[in-house]
Amino acid sequence: MANPKNPFFPLFHPRSVAVIGASGNPLKMGYQCVQSLKQCSFPGPIYPVHPQEKEILGLPAYTDVRQIRGRVDLAMLVVPAAEIFPALEACRKKGTGGIVIITAGFREIDDPKGEHLQKELSAFANRHGIKIIGPNTFGVANLHANLNASFTPSFSRLEKGPISLVSQSGGVAHLIVHQAFDEGVGLGKIVGLGNRCNVDFADLLPYLAEDKETRCIILFVEGQDDPRALLSAIKNTVPFKPVVAMKAGQSAESARAARSHTGSLAGRYEIYDAALRQAGGIVSQDPGELLDIAKILTILEPVKGKSVAIMTFQAGPGILLTDAVIRSGLSMAVLSEKTQERINRFLPPFTIRTNPVDMAFAHSEEAFDETARCLLDDRNVDALIVFLLHHPFMNITGIVGPLLRQKQKSSKPVILCANAPRGFIEDEVTEFEKGGIPVYPQPERAIRALKGLFAYGEIRERERRREGGAGSREQGAEI
Amino acid sequence: MANPKNPFFPLFHPRSVAVIGASGNPLKMGYQCVQSLKQCSFPGPIYPVHPQEKEILGLPAYTDVRQIRGRVDLAMLVVPAAEIFPALEACRKKGTGGIVIITAGFREIDDPKGEHLQKELSAFANRHGIKIIGPNTFGVANLHANLNASFTPSFSRLEKGPISLVSQSGGVAHLIVHQAFDEGVGLGKIVGLGNRCNVDFADLLPYLAEDKETRCIILFVEGQDDPRALLSAIKNTVPFKPVVAMKAGQSAESARAARSHTGSLAGRYEIYDAALRQAGGIVSQDPGELLDIAKILTILEPVKGKSVAIMTFQAGPGILLTDAVIRSGLSMAVLSEKTQERINRFLPPFTIRTNPVDMAFAHSEEAFDETARCLLDDRNVDALIVFLLHHPFMNITGIVGPLLRQKQKSSKPVILCANAPRGFIEDEVTEFEKGGIPVYPQPERAIRALKGLFAYGEIRERERRREGGAGSREQGAEI
Repeated sequence: MANPKNPFFPLFHPRSVAVIGASGNPLKMGYQCVQSLKQCSFPGPIYPVHPQEKEILGLPAYTDVRQIRGRVDLAMLVVPAAEIFPALEACRKKGTGGIVIITAGFREIDDPKGEHLQKELSAFANRHGIKIIGPNTFGVANLHANLNASFTPSFSRLEKGPISLVSQSGGVAHLIVHQAFDEGVGLGKIVGLGNRCNVDFADLLPYLAEDKETRCIILFVEGQDDPRALLSAIKNTVPFKPVVAMKAGQSAESARAARSHTGSLAGRYEIYDAALRQAGGIVSQDPGELLDIAKILTILEPVKGKSVAIMTFQAGPGILLTDAVIRSGLSMAVLSEKTQERINRFLPPFTIRTNPVDMAFAHSEEAFDETARCLLDDRNVDALIVFLLHHPFMNITGIVGPLLRQKQKSSKPVILCANAPRGFIEDEVTEFEKGGIPVYPQPERAIRALKGLFAYGEIRERERRREGGAGSREQGAEI
Repeated sequence: MANPKNPFFPLFHPRSVAVIGASGNPLKMGYQCVQSLKQCSFPGPIYPVHPQEKEILGLPAYTDVRQIRGRVDLAMLVVPAAEIFPALEACRKKGTGGIVIITAGFREIDDPKGEHLQKELSAFANRHGIKIIGPNTFGVANLHANLNASFTPSFSRLEKGPISLVSQSGGVAHLIVHQAFDEGVGLGKIVGLGNRCNVDFADLLPYLAEDKETRCIILFVEGQDDPRALLSAIKNTVPFKPVVAMKAGQSAESARAARSHTGSLAGRYEIYDAALRQAGGIVSQDPGELLDIAKILTILEPVKGKSVAIMTFQAGPGILLTDAVIRSGLSMAVLSEKTQERINRFLPPFTIRTNPVDMAFAHSEEAFDETARCLLDDRNVDALIVFLLHHPFMNITGIVGPLLRQKQKSSKPVILCANAPRGFIEDEVTEFEKGGIPVYPQPERAIRALKGLFAYGEIRERERRREGGAGSREQGAEI
């Protein structure tokens, strides 16, 4: 459990939430915010605040925060920009520790008034030692606490999981969340930083580094006023858990747009990219890849070497996987003579028996078991990728048991690339992943995830060497 | 309608199909073949042939092809390799014009007997002027004729469409088909070349070039005995329709596997890649990309220039799109002063009003119409990409009409990148695509498709210059 004295505790573990600017009109953000809290089955009281309404979404409404008798741990502010300060003042008096300002119209607008208003906001927050998320954010969620304090009710339907996401872009956060939905990937904490009036990546990372519910952190970065603080926070986090980061604004054209959006310099992409890697971040250029890498990192321990063995029943996808392995900078394991002999003995001559190993029509459980075992036993193999295609002749359900059994006998990572039309193997995917075998539908995606796993192994190794061999992971566990 | 005298006509337009080696056991390929034909509602008679069975899947079975009284236009052979020749001989006597040999155990096996058997097969086919697809193939489909002559019944559930697919790998063909399923992309003809005993890409391309039901052709190539024939066939096809091609076996490791699989030299990837491009192919390294590019090419005419305008309601995805545009070698349009003035006039200052244009909260239909129109009217803009995110505040249904209206007023391509969790906007996607606006869920995918569209424009332009200005497309239409 997180430390209740941490200033971010009320944000992620509030006992009650007020929505200031709640509304009964579904086209208003103040409606969707209340809806989000309800749909996530938030266990504590939800207080809609609205100057006139008596009831909003079936909940008694309050004309003012001061009217609420109970404590308010977290307040979501959805009132117009001009009404923010009275609302904040009321929250402060109430002792509200977590503030999320959804309202837009601050630093991001093309008008000096916005900049001025945001400066006042930062000053207020810093003066009173309050942590404010936003303004101009979709909000915050902590699915483990059944908290969806965002304007997107559908976040409530996400699976709970060990991946936390901090994004400078609401749109990109939604792209990632939609993929997580579709693929049943579990998320934990989701934070839209918005305009970052006094909370930025660097402030949240130490909290997430200690957070027992978070095993991997995804960052989507547009621009930063103080990139060094971000880099230093990443550096302090990666000994304990992996940070998968994307920096948007690679080109001059997009950097200009990022600057308009965030009010911060986007910075030269190449410098950012190199600095993020140097700090120990695993860097990607694609939101889908962020999630693919984060998933593998929550299921598997870092891989030690880069030699991959591939096992397939179809030659073509085996070739695609091989191409992807080589392209990604990993390498294809050269099977030992002993392995090669054993495989040649029990596989028929109708198959490709070098790496990739194409089982073709050798569908017996025995052949599968033997081949997987041989490959995992081979000293030249660091990781095993298995490809399965859904088909009347391919009983993927029947392979769950044997593959999980082989996996449990080995300390090496096993990754499954299983391709099927939607709706056919979702249950099997869940079983595989519960058993420690991450599943990806396309060859390219399986390999980019494995490459991320390998990258984290290298980052940890570098760290260990730097610390003179003192296991920083063990230190991390004590925090 | 295709020419009935063409030797491939019976393959794609048979009036009747026999399955030689049909079976009542669902674990046998001979069962799945009959199932495929039935599930696709093949309109002509289906004749299961089996030495003992009286009935298979509710159809009367025949002990021998000679027993069948009616004509047999297409025969699927699923008997063991040793029984192939008597079956072929019987088909020849019956005047069967289309032969698909599903049976494996020929050139692909690690045994000289297989090679020998295949040579005999080729000799037989060439001697009698019969076109044989296979051996060692999943089969053939022509969805426009309700023909699924493959061992994969689920092909029958595919949408009918103008994309035809010829693949040297069954596994990779299934990867592409599964994506087409999931995204409702329509396919026409699907051919698994298998071991290519006397039908290869170069033989099928002229047929598909003339085929009125095919508007774009996808090729998945592993290795070729006669690469020049393939290149020449592509060259002759691209004046009439685009060819999107992928060559597997980029690395030495995968080329070795491809060689084992196909029995053909995979060839140096770089040379293949350059030659395919030189011949006018649009080349990709990803099966999903093949389908994304093929889809845009069946919906839109080639784009003339590479300047892209982006319109979004979320800054972050606009920045991702911009990055993807620049990475892909396309460019961001510099809006004319007039456009910039007009946009500044009706968009609030809360938004990014240069390219990418971020509408932010300017959700009115009028603002949408005006912005789209301005961008499409601008001489500096060659193509427009619109990004939409599914959300309670974003009424994508309401945008279908306005966007299609703007599209119809312009000759420039409009591409939509619309992101939603599964199950929310499928109907809208169908409407957009029927109206001529292709839809992709992720920024990266929208841009790679647009890049393919631009590539085809360049290929056609090169062709036109080569022909000294004589519109080869017009010639194509006469065929």
